[in-house]
Amino acid sequence: MNHPSDTQAQVELWRSERQTAVERALSTWVVSDAPGGLGEAMRYAVLDGGKRLRPLLVLGTSEAVGGATEAAMRAACAVELIHAYSLVHDDMPCMDNDVLRRGKPTVHVQFGEAQALLVGDALQALAFELLVPESSVEPRLASDLCRLLARAAGAQGMAGGQAVDLASIGLALDQTALERMHRLKTGALLQASVLMGAACGHVNATTTEQLRRFGAALGLAFQVVDDVLDVTADAATLGKTAGKDAAADKPTFVALMGLQAAQAYADRLLSQAHEALQATGLARVEPLHALTDWVGRRTH
Amino acid sequence: MNHPSDTQAQVELWRSERQTAVERALSTWVVSDAPGGLGEAMRYAVLDGGKRLRPLLVLGTSEAVGGATEAAMRAACAVELIHAYSLVHDDMPCMDNDVLRRGKPTVHVQFGEAQALLVGDALQALAFELLVPESSVEPRLASDLCRLLARAAGAQGMAGGQAVDLASIGLALDQTALERMHRLKTGALLQASVLMGAACGHVNATTTEQLRRFGAALGLAFQVVDDVLDVTADAATLGKTAGKDAAADKPTFVALMGLQAAQAYADRLLSQAHEALQATGLARVEPLHALTDWVGRRTH
Repeated sequence: MNHPSDTQAQVELWRSERQTAVERALSTWVVSDAPGGLGEAMRYAVLDGGKRLRPLLVLGTSEAVGGATEAAMRAACAVELIHAYSLVHDDMPCMDNDVLRRGKPTVHVQFGEAQALLVGDALQALAFELLVPESSVEPRLASDLCRLLARAAGAQGMAGGQAVDLASIGLALDQTALERMHRLKTGALLQASVLMGAACGHVNATTTEQLRRFGAALGLAFQVVDDVLDVTADAATLGKTAGKDAAADKPTFVALMGLQAAQAYADRLLSQAHEALQATGLARVEPLHALTDWVGRRTH
Repeated sequence: MNHPSDTQAQVELWRSERQTAVERALSTWVVSDAPGGLGEAMRYAVLDGGKRLRPLLVLGTSEAVGGATEAAMRAACAVELIHAYSLVHDDMPCMDNDVLRRGKPTVHVQFGEAQALLVGDALQALAFELLVPESSVEPRLASDLCRLLARAAGAQGMAGGQAVDLASIGLALDQTALERMHRLKTGALLQASVLMGAACGHVNATTTEQLRRFGAALGLAFQVVDDVLDVTADAATLGKTAGKDAAADKPTFVALMGLQAAQAYADRLLSQAHEALQATGLARVEPLHALTDWVGRRTH
């Protein structure tokens, strides 16, 4: 999907404004005064200028459906906290054993393994706490957002996908199995971002279904692009160790399909995402189209 | 507080019936079919005949205030899942490095460290998911329960207390600092169990305040008894490694006050718990009095 350059400038402004707002909200909600140095370590894990793709999906979808702004910002930050905790735990020695993340020493390198474990645990609790303030979010919506996030983060979502990932090291997964793993491991949270944004407004079942398809296609595309970047980018660009997946003998789309076919597959998935978004019939979806393009163009 | 023997039999029946109901509910909600073997490992971590003190506090308090039964059972299981996840993560090599829990190999010994990390993460997500079903719990209550649990589990509660614990190894904490740590580390979740039970019904602010005092005194008493047991019981009775705290040079009430004074302190705290419970003016608090006695009498 092509965007005229004036639209391009508009969506880039949209994105940078939302990123700034998310950064500010995260900085307000992840406080430094938690005991035992935990607050400081949590802020280190979260406030590091990530791309904030998940929050942007929440906010973009909520705006497209005229959603409640306070609830949407809380949902945006909650989903980012889940993402941040998963990175902290993933980087630990018993998992990926990674020492570099977004160009900084990983949390366990900086604060020790035990503290990293607690940082992840506390970030997950904070994610849910953010969604249920005493008064500023309507209780039905708060409860719906909690349910969407808990399912996407848990055993039938992200954590389950990570368990499949662990169990699959060294195995020759076929494409169906690989996609199932990634739909859980990274797809569930990306899709939940879209659905949480949708929950902040009022949409009918058909639109919700198209948004679900949008989130699914985008989520899988994200992972295929990730696999491509793992072999084509260097550590300096990625901000993390490159070539990790191949070195760990993990199944990837590139290993399965070859580099060129994986790139073509990513493009097809991105097209599916654009089409599903178009099919919602919603008016203000330009930022979501632009985020979809961004996922395809990203270099890290 | 003394109980005539017929009351004793009644409260023991009450306890065993509730334990059975909690065990059944946990077995229903922690399903084995989560991908990558995660469901099986989660069930191993949870369904092991723990004492279920926290669920009993939720149910006992909810019954005392005429609370909603479905919500109370979900809250009871949710708080137990948080407790179970904290044990799994605590036992890991980077934390307490314990190999024995409730007489069984710990989760990381049985399933590996990476899986243990995921088990804990997924149990936390499931705890919040349980609290927000689509229809069987009134949304305002669901949202209140989530807030109580998230705060008690997070950086200003259990996880924060664990961070203080980490930071205090080898330090000579005074009694104030030691109590602050334990009020967070174990007290917050025990107190939240009482407050979640109370939230399931309708109680005025004065009663809530007395229940809060009850939970605080009971929570601290629990920890002092724990420290006493760590030096007086053997591993076979405890179902976990004995003498760990002293060996790890961790500050304990026994180290600080001596064994006899620590036992006397536990008794004073238990009396405070009974008094606060009495002061609620609630009629059906016999099971909660009995649970308080049980905390004092327990041998593991």
